[in-house]
Amino acid sequence: MDNHIVIMAGGVGSRFWPMSTPECPKQFIDIMGCGKSLIQLTVDRFSGICPPENMWVVTSEKYVDIVHKQLPEIPESNILAEPCARNTAPCIAYACWKIKKKHPNANMVVTPSDALVTNTVEFKRVIEKALRFTDEGSAIVTLGIKPTRPETGYGYIAAGDQLLTDKEMFTVDAFKEKPDKSTAESYLAEGSYFWNAGIFVWNVRTITSVMRVYAPGIAQIFDRIFPYFYTEDEGKMIQKFFPTCENISIDYAVMEKVQEIYVLPASFGWSDLGTWGALHGLLPQDESGNATVGPDVRMYDSRDCIVHVSEEKRVVIQGLDGYIVVEKDNTLLICKLDEEQRIKEFSK
Amino acid sequence: MDNHIVIMAGGVGSRFWPMSTPECPKQFIDIMGCGKSLIQLTVDRFSGICPPENMWVVTSEKYVDIVHKQLPEIPESNILAEPCARNTAPCIAYACWKIKKKHPNANMVVTPSDALVTNTVEFKRVIEKALRFTDEGSAIVTLGIKPTRPETGYGYIAAGDQLLTDKEMFTVDAFKEKPDKSTAESYLAEGSYFWNAGIFVWNVRTITSVMRVYAPGIAQIFDRIFPYFYTEDEGKMIQKFFPTCENISIDYAVMEKVQEIYVLPASFGWSDLGTWGALHGLLPQDESGNATVGPDVRMYDSRDCIVHVSEEKRVVIQGLDGYIVVEKDNTLLICKLDEEQRIKEFSK
Repeated sequence: MDNHIVIMAGGVGSRFWPMSTPECPKQFIDIMGCGKSLIQLTVDRFSGICPPENMWVVTSEKYVDIVHKQLPEIPESNILAEPCARNTAPCIAYACWKIKKKHPNANMVVTPSDALVTNTVEFKRVIEKALRFTDEGSAIVTLGIKPTRPETGYGYIAAGDQLLTDKEMFTVDAFKEKPDKSTAESYLAEGSYFWNAGIFVWNVRTITSVMRVYAPGIAQIFDRIFPYFYTEDEGKMIQKFFPTCENISIDYAVMEKVQEIYVLPASFGWSDLGTWGALHGLLPQDESGNATVGPDVRMYDSRDCIVHVSEEKRVVIQGLDGYIVVEKDNTLLICKLDEEQRIKEFSK
Repeated sequence: MDNHIVIMAGGVGSRFWPMSTPECPKQFIDIMGCGKSLIQLTVDRFSGICPPENMWVVTSEKYVDIVHKQLPEIPESNILAEPCARNTAPCIAYACWKIKKKHPNANMVVTPSDALVTNTVEFKRVIEKALRFTDEGSAIVTLGIKPTRPETGYGYIAAGDQLLTDKEMFTVDAFKEKPDKSTAESYLAEGSYFWNAGIFVWNVRTITSVMRVYAPGIAQIFDRIFPYFYTEDEGKMIQKFFPTCENISIDYAVMEKVQEIYVLPASFGWSDLGTWGALHGLLPQDESGNATVGPDVRMYDSRDCIVHVSEEKRVVIQGLDGYIVVEKDNTLLICKLDEEQRIKEFSK
């Protein structure tokens, strides 16, 4: 098998300001206080599935140096720089066309760089299973996370029929946008709806074929760039044509339309870490529900807070209930957890 | 008139941690965000009363450099270093005996370095009046601040009879310790009780005489050091004998016992800035009662907070009611204003 991993790392992580900033967004931060950034944890959980030479990172030009510094084992030439943000469809096309040129039989996983997985053994089993499923033929597999609560912050995948040949695998009935609360509750009760983790598995022939059908504009652009990959003109061509791609997600451009697509339901402690509330739920908490990341954080008369401070900071907090306290570089944010949707506004 | 000002600047300001730290206590900090530290403001308000050569600062050894840096106009030899903290009586004796040696007719004001005065014109009038009163003879004058609320955080001076020769001046009936709430309320209703600002006016003959009577141990120590002032052995003698002084306040050692003592009631917007609550009341507030010191502090849905951060800090606060938020160097404190008496505990 010629396995490849494509890590999408172009996000700006604005919901985690000021921990996450445009200069250093969340995928490059040790959010969990474990000594590794989210992108380092992402690479770690794919170890053994392919060698580092088969790992690819697509990111913004301005994060290339950070990626290289945090992931020195990945060849610098595998770090693909987007001249501008164009959502996931052009990002994925860039990686797939480039990989295809040298590895026409590549079989691959596309993954976000900023999600968290707690059961990495089960994660690896599921990924390897999906890769076996897509290695031949033209199937696309999406991972569907078994929901544990009526979450309104994620998109859902509605599963259809169970495959006779593989009872873990289901057809996809539909992709569903983020639901409202009552819809999310019915999804949870139904049992056949799964969170869309944005993790896709396919071989490179399949994805390039379906993009030619469903995203022909983007496909044409990369067909045009294709002869220049691995030449000295590659950068110039990307600079010139990448920005002309449609700004569209892979879900919307391809996944929702394609026929031969399957969902592999899985439970490996996944979270997209999209909110402070989600992070609060994942970090270890003291007996009062406070989750703290920082070397010297003392809490008095406080509960259900999340505190995230830089390494050399000493913090004393008294009398806070349900707050976010974040300090990084020269910025301090104190905000109620249930007002965190306003953080984007605060950061301006 | 041979006027001198003695500024006591040995305090550690532990109630304002982490803004005030043992390395740089509150008298050396720009608490008001006005561009000057409290000790600089103190020197400013005495300008015109005596030249800088007649200003003296008594402080801890470890603050000598800060004093010199903040008050370059005061001769370095006028900065008197205490080898250890021994409360106000030894501190004042040190300055008075030293001044007496070169200025036997000195008339002087002793003042804390960390209080605030808002009406400096009235302050100057009152000080000059007190100095005229003590220039000859053996009177001691204390300034009594007319109380505006039943404050339990200050000591009080009970005024006795109005002087026939000067209707602004009263005899002192008694010095009163910090009262409980109901006692403070009766003091306020009475009208003849004043806050003890710790500002004393006397001539150097008077204070050395009364100390010989009421604090003979301390007086003997400085009589012994006296021949060595302004010699190369002064430092050695202070190192050796200052620590042997009794640890006692000037109020307790002398003021409460001496006979010829008067109180000059005054109103010049005085505060000892002893608490965050007091500072909150003195700083300009926004329409929601938030007082902020810092270059970029934004408050949302917050009221009655005091925020004090270092110069380069950006702060966003949402949803706090009645809190202290202080950041300095690498320390952050968030604490309810009505729990500020616990700050000493937090700082350990």
